[in-house]
Amino acid sequence: MLSKKVIKDIQSLGLKKYREETGLFLAEGPKIVEELSRIVPAQIEAVYATASWNGFAGELKNMNEVSEAELGKLSQLKTPNQVLAVLRQFPAGVPDTSSFTLYLDAVQDPGNFGTIVRIADWFGVKQIVCSKGCADLYNPKVVQATMASVARVTVFYDEEESWLRQQSQTIYAAALNGKILSSFSNIEKGILIIGNESKGIREEFLQLSNERITIPRRGEAESLNAAVATGIILSHLLG
Amino acid sequence: MLSKKVIKDIQSLGLKKYREETGLFLAEGPKIVEELSRIVPAQIEAVYATASWNGFAGELKNMNEVSEAELGKLSQLKTPNQVLAVLRQFPAGVPDTSSFTLYLDAVQDPGNFGTIVRIADWFGVKQIVCSKGCADLYNPKVVQATMASVARVTVFYDEEESWLRQQSQTIYAAALNGKILSSFSNIEKGILIIGNESKGIREEFLQLSNERITIPRRGEAESLNAAVATGIILSHLLG
Repeated sequence: MLSKKVIKDIQSLGLKKYREETGLFLAEGPKIVEELSRIVPAQIEAVYATASWNGFAGELKNMNEVSEAELGKLSQLKTPNQVLAVLRQFPAGVPDTSSFTLYLDAVQDPGNFGTIVRIADWFGVKQIVCSKGCADLYNPKVVQATMASVARVTVFYDEEESWLRQQSQTIYAAALNGKILSSFSNIEKGILIIGNESKGIREEFLQLSNERITIPRRGEAESLNAAVATGIILSHLLG
Repeated sequence: MLSKKVIKDIQSLGLKKYREETGLFLAEGPKIVEELSRIVPAQIEAVYATASWNGFAGELKNMNEVSEAELGKLSQLKTPNQVLAVLRQFPAGVPDTSSFTLYLDAVQDPGNFGTIVRIADWFGVKQIVCSKGCADLYNPKVVQATMASVARVTVFYDEEESWLRQQSQTIYAAALNGKILSSFSNIEKGILIIGNESKGIREEFLQLSNERITIPRRGEAESLNAAVATGIILSHLLG
């Protein structure tokens, strides 16, 4: 049976404060936990799973069988899903300016943020730099939306918001009244800025951009979701 | 003060059974309610809003001021947002095969489904045909994700799952091992099939397709979110 302390410690990882104090985060569900176990086994500190989980055969340390009720107490999900893992956060490092980079200006929604990490991973974008106001990479909702891409894309937080000013690569901004998307292709290097869900890209960052890119609208929706727009632009820029 | 009956009637619209019985659905929050009031005022049966809402000036019938606590009882959202509207569902009709059509094969997640409706509206796709197993257009989470595009895109449910077989237009399928995305552009007519989030497109529908389209992967993510894939493919096909 799990001790009250273990339950409390794991529950507390739903909060950024405790994630920062401990350097840990949570991932849930067979699909993500199994992929993370395969690609970054050394990051996994503990696994809690019900008897229904098929993953016990692996060599992970600190595997614990729990009841459905116990998993329910540990889980951040509405519907707990067989297994929860506690992982060590990835080292931060410094952005590598020789490869294509996404810059997110205050992308706040955890689902959008995590989906963007997954899209970056699909298109081979290995790093994302984030302004203040972006969601936390280790927020459980972000981790779920990345579908394990959290382990393959490096995310940097630009606390000073000065990083863009220091770059000499071409800076592309997703914005209205820019050049149409199909004018761009086969880009190997550069930075693409994606703006906040309701405010778009702040003026200061727009001024730093060399090219504005617009997704032509043929219908009447007022806007596209930030993650969808990121996917569309990357598919043209890098394709 | 709201009667218990009104509260219960509105709460029950969270369930498909009651939406079908009454032909009504809910939309919440200033952004969506104000846009629906502007574009389809005749569909609005009633509006319930707190004093903080700025939209009372309009000419909508049956506007009711409610307390925060009352709105909390009516709302399907975790964080009720100023205003809730009860609307009449749109007439169903028959798909117009002369225009570009999306066909969704069991797209279940309400957020994905609603986001796809919004994407269709952005790209001028005026109709979506859905197999069994798709989310309900009038599910409150779907309506929220459409961002009012629910009023501009017509959604048909193909209950017999026989519609695709009867079509003579070119059928495109989003699938692995197809032609790469950039081979397609300036398509005016046709049908694009998007598959279920985990199973993809069922074999029977794949067999009906004339072209398979693949989004090239440069990185390592196993897949893309269904809505993101829809946006990417439409941006190339129709762009």
